[in-house]
Amino acid sequence: MTSKAEWIAVDWGTSNLRAWGIDASGEIVFSRTSPKGMGKLDRDDYPAALSEVVAGEDFATSSVDVLICGMAGARQGWIEAPYLDAPANLQALANGAVQPKMPNDRLRPAILPGVCQKTPGNENVMRGEETQLLGLSALIPNFDGVVCMPGTHSKWVALSGARISRFATAMTGELYEVLRTHSVLRHSLNGDLDGPDRDAGFDAGVDVGLGRPDDLLGLLFGVRAGSLLSNRQPDWCAGYLSGLLIGSEIGGHRDWLGESEVPLIGATALCELYKRALSRAGAKSRLVDATEAVLTGLKAARQFAA
Amino acid sequence: MTSKAEWIAVDWGTSNLRAWGIDASGEIVFSRTSPKGMGKLDRDDYPAALSEVVAGEDFATSSVDVLICGMAGARQGWIEAPYLDAPANLQALANGAVQPKMPNDRLRPAILPGVCQKTPGNENVMRGEETQLLGLSALIPNFDGVVCMPGTHSKWVALSGARISRFATAMTGELYEVLRTHSVLRHSLNGDLDGPDRDAGFDAGVDVGLGRPDDLLGLLFGVRAGSLLSNRQPDWCAGYLSGLLIGSEIGGHRDWLGESEVPLIGATALCELYKRALSRAGAKSRLVDATEAVLTGLKAARQFAA
Repeated sequence: MTSKAEWIAVDWGTSNLRAWGIDASGEIVFSRTSPKGMGKLDRDDYPAALSEVVAGEDFATSSVDVLICGMAGARQGWIEAPYLDAPANLQALANGAVQPKMPNDRLRPAILPGVCQKTPGNENVMRGEETQLLGLSALIPNFDGVVCMPGTHSKWVALSGARISRFATAMTGELYEVLRTHSVLRHSLNGDLDGPDRDAGFDAGVDVGLGRPDDLLGLLFGVRAGSLLSNRQPDWCAGYLSGLLIGSEIGGHRDWLGESEVPLIGATALCELYKRALSRAGAKSRLVDATEAVLTGLKAARQFAA
Repeated sequence: MTSKAEWIAVDWGTSNLRAWGIDASGEIVFSRTSPKGMGKLDRDDYPAALSEVVAGEDFATSSVDVLICGMAGARQGWIEAPYLDAPANLQALANGAVQPKMPNDRLRPAILPGVCQKTPGNENVMRGEETQLLGLSALIPNFDGVVCMPGTHSKWVALSGARISRFATAMTGELYEVLRTHSVLRHSLNGDLDGPDRDAGFDAGVDVGLGRPDDLLGLLFGVRAGSLLSNRQPDWCAGYLSGLLIGSEIGGHRDWLGESEVPLIGATALCELYKRALSRAGAKSRLVDATEAVLTGLKAARQFAA
């Protein structure tokens, strides 16, 4: 006999909604994904989207908890879950959860808060990453160092156990996308971007970005100039642009890097690029599975709340 | 009796085409503008666009020279005018001019070259600015220093007399536009961007950008975090973003700045912003009229060719 879900863990991001049924022993009994991310929903759409993603599943009880992390708790989301202030102890995450209303009590949702940093000049916010970080603190007991979370908005986090002391955000992924799509650089990135020269371009870009992070505005134009003067091909240019941005990001965070291995949490292919770039900066890193981190984090948040 | 044009000076940029009829004494006898910039034209459209912009004007002779600078000489333009290599003596500009074909010989166009820099790691190109710089060298005899040319792609040029020793390009203006329009920052810049707090935001952004040019990817996200956490309004955010970018640009070029006044050539409102930002960096600057610079440059190029 299959065991039934005792509660539901949900990662509700901008582009997707993922739900896992968890049984009494902590095992996953079902796993569902929906494209109904926060970016596609109006406030009133959330209850139906949540019911829909677990439709047809049997639960252990007639009413189950649903613990949610991510952008569903943003001001533009379902209901705002106020930020925890950094420095922040992530074990307290569930204390800050908010309960949105549902049409019936079959599902009892609670949305975890994000974390903010109000230091003047270093104001910052995260939503979703805090849960992965809580998960990381369970996956790597006694961790003390910096965590890098590559993505549209990459996070750099100084984490000690389950405590965030400070963090930063780099708009690296988003900048790559808007430059590739909307800037003059699109003329140099028009063609097969995954050709054989992409890696060589990436490494060249990383080295330049690492060495001159204070000249990013200038280096970016070099992508265009390089394709005009040296006949660089689109695959090389795409790798170079990506390398420049990631290299500049790492170069701007050199003082965050110590001797210890940097956990990388994010999409696997992107994390592999960061690992490659970090090694060119002399830093060790290792990939941590992002799904495992968020699931472990949701479980830990529920545990600490109990 | 009005004197007639002996030749025509043309600035043919990406978005506009401007033509001035010049008489034997160097005076302007007519001035015309057309929206037919290089960005809107196919190769075959150029002869008609040029004829059209001077249609109805009388010339001193049945056939006149037309000296053109700008993007009409780009690879995607009318006909490519190969770059002069920096270090470059701009007095030789006209030697590198190319002659595109016209259906009849009433107009005899010649397009001036741009300037490129092939230094590995600092590859760069300019097209149009070189003519303004030649003009500047005539307007400020014995100039020796750095020139800043704010714009979509700002140029920083080390100029001594009419000699460019090196130059750099910063994608500042274009980055402002793509971030304002296409990135997550658009949510913070949604409203009246010209409100009363824009200047305060600009100054704050300049100071932060000047101080931390190596953290631009991080500072950019601060625009969003600031509007979420400190309820910054769109006018403040727009000023702050603009200040961050210009401050970072200047901060990344501190080693270019000396004691002497920096000439600023570009759109007046933008140059005023750079003047304000440069003064916060402790540098003196002054505006040079961009139209006067390009016209003086076209005249000088013709003179040196003669």
